[in-house]
Amino acid sequence: MTKKSVDSLISARWVVPVIPENTVLENHCLAIDQGNIIDLFPENELDSRGYQTANHERLDNHVLIPGLINCHGHAAMALLRGYADDLALQDWLDNHIWPAEGKWVGEQFVYDGTSLAIAEMLKSGTTCFSDMYFFPDQTARAAQKAQMRCQLTFPIFNFPSAYGEGPLDYIHKGLAIRDDYKNQQLVNVIFGPHAPYTVSDEAFEKIAMYANELDVGIHIHLHETAHEVAESIEQYGKRPIERLNALGILTSRTQCVHMANLNQQDIDIVNNAGSHVIHCPESNMKLASGFCPVHELQEQGINVAIGTDSAASNNDLDMFCEMKIAALLGKVVSGNPSAVNAHNSLRMATINGARALGLEDTIGSLESGKAADLCAINMGAVEAQPLYSPVSTLVYTNSGNRVEQVWVNGKMLVKDGELTTLNIEEIYQKALEWGQKIAGQVP
Amino acid sequence: MTKKSVDSLISARWVVPVIPENTVLENHCLAIDQGNIIDLFPENELDSRGYQTANHERLDNHVLIPGLINCHGHAAMALLRGYADDLALQDWLDNHIWPAEGKWVGEQFVYDGTSLAIAEMLKSGTTCFSDMYFFPDQTARAAQKAQMRCQLTFPIFNFPSAYGEGPLDYIHKGLAIRDDYKNQQLVNVIFGPHAPYTVSDEAFEKIAMYANELDVGIHIHLHETAHEVAESIEQYGKRPIERLNALGILTSRTQCVHMANLNQQDIDIVNNAGSHVIHCPESNMKLASGFCPVHELQEQGINVAIGTDSAASNNDLDMFCEMKIAALLGKVVSGNPSAVNAHNSLRMATINGARALGLEDTIGSLESGKAADLCAINMGAVEAQPLYSPVSTLVYTNSGNRVEQVWVNGKMLVKDGELTTLNIEEIYQKALEWGQKIAGQVP
Repeated sequence: MTKKSVDSLISARWVVPVIPENTVLENHCLAIDQGNIIDLFPENELDSRGYQTANHERLDNHVLIPGLINCHGHAAMALLRGYADDLALQDWLDNHIWPAEGKWVGEQFVYDGTSLAIAEMLKSGTTCFSDMYFFPDQTARAAQKAQMRCQLTFPIFNFPSAYGEGPLDYIHKGLAIRDDYKNQQLVNVIFGPHAPYTVSDEAFEKIAMYANELDVGIHIHLHETAHEVAESIEQYGKRPIERLNALGILTSRTQCVHMANLNQQDIDIVNNAGSHVIHCPESNMKLASGFCPVHELQEQGINVAIGTDSAASNNDLDMFCEMKIAALLGKVVSGNPSAVNAHNSLRMATINGARALGLEDTIGSLESGKAADLCAINMGAVEAQPLYSPVSTLVYTNSGNRVEQVWVNGKMLVKDGELTTLNIEEIYQKALEWGQKIAGQVP
Repeated sequence: MTKKSVDSLISARWVVPVIPENTVLENHCLAIDQGNIIDLFPENELDSRGYQTANHERLDNHVLIPGLINCHGHAAMALLRGYADDLALQDWLDNHIWPAEGKWVGEQFVYDGTSLAIAEMLKSGTTCFSDMYFFPDQTARAAQKAQMRCQLTFPIFNFPSAYGEGPLDYIHKGLAIRDDYKNQQLVNVIFGPHAPYTVSDEAFEKIAMYANELDVGIHIHLHETAHEVAESIEQYGKRPIERLNALGILTSRTQCVHMANLNQQDIDIVNNAGSHVIHCPESNMKLASGFCPVHELQEQGINVAIGTDSAASNNDLDMFCEMKIAALLGKVVSGNPSAVNAHNSLRMATINGARALGLEDTIGSLESGKAADLCAINMGAVEAQPLYSPVSTLVYTNSGNRVEQVWVNGKMLVKDGELTTLNIEEIYQKALEWGQKIAGQVP
């Protein structure tokens, strides 16, 4: 028998590959080489497969799943976690968040805040995050340091900020970052026009043109509140989705975030365009934005993925918590307890996210040829017993704090719950210092 | 200066006494003697107050709060956690939960399942739980072993079960248990008629009479589903709340659980009766029962407390998770992001629970003269930084797994995250064995 040397083998008590759907494999083994999954097979075939490695990880009481994909957030805002809660949206933005951002946001804020967010995300099993924020080059720098995968959606507004002067400046800065990271496997850079109410028709037309020419994605907050929809009708005579569709923004490369205020016409437009929906259940609830009709969207064939949104409107970045709430909310909103089941919710947080980000050939499931972005959860807690269904327990019982191992591209970034590429003490200290400054406790 | 010897002192970085409302004290100290809180004062008055103790606990990076009160559950069903998820309510009950209960429920099931639930509840900061299940004497036995506080609501149905023959038998058995525990400080025994659709008018009249004579509480599932309401109108010509009110069941000693399908008349009846509402947000979402209008009920002056319901419809017993979802759901359902704020949610899980259970003189806040039922949460996790508002962080960021110390009646039941009165290995092993039996993996 030929022996084949591989970088690592991971044996796990349970493996949930996500594709094929609704599958839980017991006592299976994953072979990884050069960052990719090259095989997935029953443990008892270990000898006959002939793999040799110096790194054989044995996870006797763990479930191994694809790394989670957090499809929407503003990582640096982790520094504003709990800064202003329980407020009406406009009060929250106008009188708290925007003034704080105006005063504090700069390169260091973004780097330190993103590092804090990455520490939390990795520790709770997220291996890829999408981000929309000022100074995306700093977000990229923090992600590269951690060796975590990310999608940067460079921000575009009509108005100036510490980061840019206006729509064209934002676009040019963003495309320059895209060029800088063109050859970086772990960073994908796409357009991030903030929202229908902060970007003009003219800018949208430019974005649509560039996105088409360059074959690049667009990520946008859309139909978050009823107010946004009403205002658009007043200003443009059209609902935001209708307007964006007319401007060429909605394509199969478009990621529509929130989508909490929809009618059937909106759903049809998005469906015909083949655009993706990024559902942010906790944020929609906390800001009282409304309900995204996940079950209905899925029934009609629309791809729905999940995001946490920022820690300022959540206030954690734990995708397990988000999966639980997505499932619970999907049921009660549709009035159907079998809607959005546990496997479905796990798909939203993995393969559906990969599809939304245009990365379905690379991540989102444990299949040969895909990158080894993985997450192992210890099921030995008393709170997880008895264990009739690993996926049900993963989704419904707060598993984020039971994540023990996390890999991105075959590299172990979390080992026994500890980060391997980041200095947690330093990140913690920086967060403390920012917190004191922002709260006005130090000059 | 006189020295006063006390059983223990607890110094904490932050203390949230709950009463007075919306208060966060920094660097305060709690004096405890004979199971009761006897003083709460600023740390810098430690010398001048003159307390002496051999037990001075210093919690330098912790928030100290009243122990959480889980006002509704079926603890023993922890053994059915994840046994049958994502199913329609009637299918779930008829084809899964009830057959499993019919086959397995007995004294040992209840004792072992309740012990499992107690382990999880104590570790996540719950110090008092309300329970409705068969063989409540076994529930009491498990709680007494743990030295945890509980309210037993002895079950009453029209139909027989492994535990009782019919309504009168259930009532007599329950009252006998009430007599057995009359002098036990930590156990309170009240009536638990299951629901309007499982108890006859005749039995309700008897329960109302006994409850009045004995001045004992009543705990009942009420208006959980729209189906329940429709069926009652068909059968009795009245909505369930209307019918129960006419039967004398609704008083200021009554705890109405779920209340997810209400109209204004229902709310008025409950308000006039002074009855309490036990909100179970995760269970209502998971079973797609509907929305309890928490903000509306509170605005009208009704006391709302929180319960997890059983691990079969949740699937965890973590009251921090329940507080978060209660706050998020209260906002989105009322369309008001400032509704059900973090302090409010903490009140629902503490003092409001104490009021609902008729224990407001004993527990629910950190006031002199109350029992020392406490919970300390370590705020040093990177996921909790920066820390602008301890209560916001407690409620919105999954703090259940950061509970380190828990006391009931002044006795430390959780120390550094470990149980002091229970054998966790034994409980875990029993849960594994029950799980294998119930799943049919062993004969």
